[in-house]
Amino acid sequence: MKRYLALFLVLTFISPIFADEGMWTFDNPPLKQWKERYNFEPSQAWLDNVRLASPKVNNASAGFVSPNGLIVTNHHVASAFIERLSTKERDLMKTGFTAKTLYEELKVPNGEASVLFSYDNVTERIRNVEKTAPDDAVAANNRINEIAAIEKDCVETTKLRCNVISFYSGGEYWLYRFKVYSDIRLVQAPEEQAAFFGGDYDNFVYPRHDLDYTFLRAYENDKPASTPNYFKWSAKGAQDGEFILVSGYPGSTARLLTVAQLAYQRDVGNPLQKQVWELRRKALENYSKLGAEQLRQANPGMRSFANSLKRLEGQQDGLMNPRNFAKKVAEENELRDKLKAKPELDKLYAPAWTNIATAYDKLPKMANRIAYSNVAASRLASIALQIVTYHKEVAKHSDGRFPEFRETRLGAFKSGIMAPATINLDLEEATLTAWLEDARRILGNNDPFIKAALGDAEASEVVKRAIRETTLKDPAARKAMVDGPASAVDSSTDPMVTLARRIEPIVRELRAWNETNITNVDTANGTKIAQARFAVYGKTMPPDANSQLRIEYGKVHGYEEDTTLVPYKTTFYGLYDRWLSFNGKHPFDLPESLVSRKDKIDLSTPLNFVYSADTIGGNSGSPVINRNGEIVGLNFDSNNQKLSNRYWYIDENEGSRAVGVHTAGILEALRKVYDANWLADELVSK
Amino acid sequence: MKRYLALFLVLTFISPIFADEGMWTFDNPPLKQWKERYNFEPSQAWLDNVRLASPKVNNASAGFVSPNGLIVTNHHVASAFIERLSTKERDLMKTGFTAKTLYEELKVPNGEASVLFSYDNVTERIRNVEKTAPDDAVAANNRINEIAAIEKDCVETTKLRCNVISFYSGGEYWLYRFKVYSDIRLVQAPEEQAAFFGGDYDNFVYPRHDLDYTFLRAYENDKPASTPNYFKWSAKGAQDGEFILVSGYPGSTARLLTVAQLAYQRDVGNPLQKQVWELRRKALENYSKLGAEQLRQANPGMRSFANSLKRLEGQQDGLMNPRNFAKKVAEENELRDKLKAKPELDKLYAPAWTNIATAYDKLPKMANRIAYSNVAASRLASIALQIVTYHKEVAKHSDGRFPEFRETRLGAFKSGIMAPATINLDLEEATLTAWLEDARRILGNNDPFIKAALGDAEASEVVKRAIRETTLKDPAARKAMVDGPASAVDSSTDPMVTLARRIEPIVRELRAWNETNITNVDTANGTKIAQARFAVYGKTMPPDANSQLRIEYGKVHGYEEDTTLVPYKTTFYGLYDRWLSFNGKHPFDLPESLVSRKDKIDLSTPLNFVYSADTIGGNSGSPVINRNGEIVGLNFDSNNQKLSNRYWYIDENEGSRAVGVHTAGILEALRKVYDANWLADELVSK
Repeated sequence: MKRYLALFLVLTFISPIFADEGMWTFDNPPLKQWKERYNFEPSQAWLDNVRLASPKVNNASAGFVSPNGLIVTNHHVASAFIERLSTKERDLMKTGFTAKTLYEELKVPNGEASVLFSYDNVTERIRNVEKTAPDDAVAANNRINEIAAIEKDCVETTKLRCNVISFYSGGEYWLYRFKVYSDIRLVQAPEEQAAFFGGDYDNFVYPRHDLDYTFLRAYENDKPASTPNYFKWSAKGAQDGEFILVSGYPGSTARLLTVAQLAYQRDVGNPLQKQVWELRRKALENYSKLGAEQLRQANPGMRSFANSLKRLEGQQDGLMNPRNFAKKVAEENELRDKLKAKPELDKLYAPAWTNIATAYDKLPKMANRIAYSNVAASRLASIALQIVTYHKEVAKHSDGRFPEFRETRLGAFKSGIMAPATINLDLEEATLTAWLEDARRILGNNDPFIKAALGDAEASEVVKRAIRETTLKDPAARKAMVDGPASAVDSSTDPMVTLARRIEPIVRELRAWNETNITNVDTANGTKIAQARFAVYGKTMPPDANSQLRIEYGKVHGYEEDTTLVPYKTTFYGLYDRWLSFNGKHPFDLPESLVSRKDKIDLSTPLNFVYSADTIGGNSGSPVINRNGEIVGLNFDSNNQKLSNRYWYIDENEGSRAVGVHTAGILEALRKVYDANWLADELVSK
Repeated sequence: MKRYLALFLVLTFISPIFADEGMWTFDNPPLKQWKERYNFEPSQAWLDNVRLASPKVNNASAGFVSPNGLIVTNHHVASAFIERLSTKERDLMKTGFTAKTLYEELKVPNGEASVLFSYDNVTERIRNVEKTAPDDAVAANNRINEIAAIEKDCVETTKLRCNVISFYSGGEYWLYRFKVYSDIRLVQAPEEQAAFFGGDYDNFVYPRHDLDYTFLRAYENDKPASTPNYFKWSAKGAQDGEFILVSGYPGSTARLLTVAQLAYQRDVGNPLQKQVWELRRKALENYSKLGAEQLRQANPGMRSFANSLKRLEGQQDGLMNPRNFAKKVAEENELRDKLKAKPELDKLYAPAWTNIATAYDKLPKMANRIAYSNVAASRLASIALQIVTYHKEVAKHSDGRFPEFRETRLGAFKSGIMAPATINLDLEEATLTAWLEDARRILGNNDPFIKAALGDAEASEVVKRAIRETTLKDPAARKAMVDGPASAVDSSTDPMVTLARRIEPIVRELRAWNETNITNVDTANGTKIAQARFAVYGKTMPPDANSQLRIEYGKVHGYEEDTTLVPYKTTFYGLYDRWLSFNGKHPFDLPESLVSRKDKIDLSTPLNFVYSADTIGGNSGSPVINRNGEIVGLNFDSNNQKLSNRYWYIDENEGSRAVGVHTAGILEALRKVYDANWLADELVSK
């Protein structure tokens, strides 16, 4: 733990970055590439404005588009908010929503948006506490404690939300300070069928025709928040060939994974994940067939799993491509060869690859148990399990707990447990029953988790009683059980709590096995590999995505596919063509608004468009901006060709593209379809 | 040559036909499949009407669509006619053409359409002359002579065009009698850019947006021909899910090829063909860059090669697919296993596969010489070569000549040679020079063809003199040289004739080698294999396509591709979307007519559509008809997924589809874009 720091800057930096690769942090934008390729030299003020105008919303991306707190994001990002505002009688997903004045804007329960207000590099503080440790385990613990201390100090000093974030698999640590807006209101949303025209079929597909946008507004003190940092709305929108940038919160990439880790994903991890998601999607689908209300309840979950599955299949296609995989093997070999040329570095880092490979040899035989021994299919059951674990953990000193139960995080844990969002009991009963039946079929009756959860009973009986009789439906009961003594949980006869008590030791044991044998090995050795790469290539390459603010770039242009050209944009003509081409059959049906306003719309207005930029899930809702910092589009998807960019960057020449909603198309919809001229005026009349 | 006939009907027929497979002859329509799958039982009158309403035009397909000789076919089928009517000053390819009355219809030089008037099975007559032969060579000669006799007798008796056609690689012979219309006039054609919107990029692509149709009219005695057999025009056109049939002239398939033959195509034949076509296309492209007029001249050829190359690449993709190839191997093994169960059949047929495999072992080392030793890049040079060969051949008895020079075919040969169509000298000089330069580069200076054609001279000098000085530009000179004595050719100093005299022995030698070692082996053994299949499966499967009239069937429906659905039809909305999506950049530009009439058109009118039906090149212009015998569309292309159906049927579940122009779209274009109401009325007012 002592020597490698000094080595970081030993070698000259040779960038292995290709084309317009990279999800760059704001402390290290690719100024050289921008200048050389696009003659773009932003000022620090330009960069600061982009950062401060890019809030995170619902774990995805968004942009401020007026000085009065107006936010634009994707409909599929805001849909969790729109769902919360919907009831059986007022289904805003179906009808859409347009406030006619500020006063009609609807406050979203538990709505939140946050902005990266400031940041500092705290790597040295972390390294200092690691250095003093005799071994890796102590070093890890020291690090966790130091991070907690930094965060606590920051919160007390600034009153901002403070998180220490790891980049380059621990190669750097940064303290990020967030300004949080907790009063978010719904301003204007199209019908889901306009935002998600073509449904899951057209997901990850281009040409595309979706009005996948929603306007929200941040409020402070019951008034529209003042947001001097915002993107001016380009009424003209994205142009063919134009240089663009994308700011947002890409969720995760796995570009530093070793060949052993990728081979595991390809051969075991992804197929298993696919099986799990397919079973969960199927359970929701079966439930949705019971009626219209059941369909409404199950729809967001089904959509989410279908989306995840399609993405997973694209990623797996990428891994299954021997040419891509061979390129990854070559990259790994190149790095290891470069290390071999410096014996001092090699001695330090070379074991990391072997350690990971050895660890992953053990995983396949545990993978099924780890994947199926859980109750994630039910929020109520998950809450019960968390409460049981909570009491076991808080009995320990903070430093020895699972991270989410350490003192600094208890607030977040409790507010998650107490969140009052509606729980659909029929849905929970159906999905948890199906899950436990599937788990029993796959793990067998002798499996410890199945024995503990079900014994000899039918899953349907156990689950029905647990869901129907539990008092945990009531947030107050949850609060009482968290804040009360552990003995109350231990002696509770609530059937959901007794189920949780039975399975908790099994879940805990598997979590411990996984952390000891895999996660900690991943972290420790992944850190070394990241540091090795850092030593060889430095910050000429960006860190893996981690749901933190990044800036990406590229240009607006079409591509070649299956011997023909795919255009850079689509128009409203294309939307109506696709609707009519399927004779309006769902999911290619249109809401009444778009049908009745067809002849009012200027159909030649651009609707969606594509661009090369290294985005990934989490970039949904990202502002696509031009060199003047104006918003020219709203990122909402990637095409098929780009899906395996989780594991490696896919060159734009292979047709990989991000897909956005065009700002001209959104303006046209606001004025001609949704009669929201006041909102359109707020966007462009500045 | 004696025993296999009696065996034809020995085995029960087990059909290996899948789904809607098959290009069926009219003597053997798949009545059982139609009845079982589509509850369709056509009368003989229905079938006769379809046959008599389906003329062959320019070696492709067409349909009569009024009782007054009106014909519809594809623009790309009629384009050879439209070219002949075009000049630098009147470029009908560019401007389109619409006759305002009958009197304005333009007579096409050498225009022709022919209908399969009647047919008879003459297999027994052929078998009888084969039976008496001591060996295969004599049998082949006897067959050729008998065919010539049958054709001659037929012509004298009926005054129709008569051809004896081989099916099932000689498994059956049929006498086909054709009624020929030799006065064909142009009635209405859209601009090429409307017919071929998207150009080569969109060729073999769907969704598609092409008005690829042209109306012609057959005349007799200077009046519109009376054509009582025609297809009624469906104004509604093809509907989703509808059963449809397609009649036309599929050019060639190779579904009875052996694994050895297919492996040769995959490994040698197709790559070599690709090289040849690419060189010829490149020569035209270089010429086209010299100016607008050169571009106009080179365009049809470039388009033809681009089209052929794209098709060849699709076919090759199919051959390169190991799964498909393994299926073919399994089919061959199954047939050979079934034969083994009948030793009598096996003894007769099993050697055929070995003979072919042995023959093809010799081909690769000759393939380059055969492919490059020709002057097909120049019509003038080809004519000169044919004249030299003609005089050598006519010195022999008719039976011993190359087939095209036997007495019965001399008429066709001469009219081909004399055809007065314009020859572009600059174009000919450029393409022949490039061809001979390429051939020299590939074959080397010591190659016999190169030595004979060029010796030590530059290709450009030899060709320039030959093209500039030859008198063969004048059809009268060609006639004189054909009708005059051989000595006049032998002593001619016309530099094109002397070039032809030098290369003729080499070309003749290679042709002889190929016929002896490959073609005759193909024919003799292909016949046996076809007969073996015939013996095992009978007429439950259709014969390979051979440019003769066939009927195919399937249904109108979309398909799944790259995780999304592709609709069964496109609309005019889609055309304008694609135009605007590319900002009108060529080849996605539209002619002025479509731009200016945009707001007059009902944009929801169907434009193109897809259907499963076992079509192939030559089916261009085929009427797509419903069970009532009404025309609902006009076949013009296949999608990418279908291209390797040359070698095997591609199941519709793999997304293979034929692409047609919708009859509602054609009607809308006639009325709203081309002001041809009189023509639209002729179609629908009956």
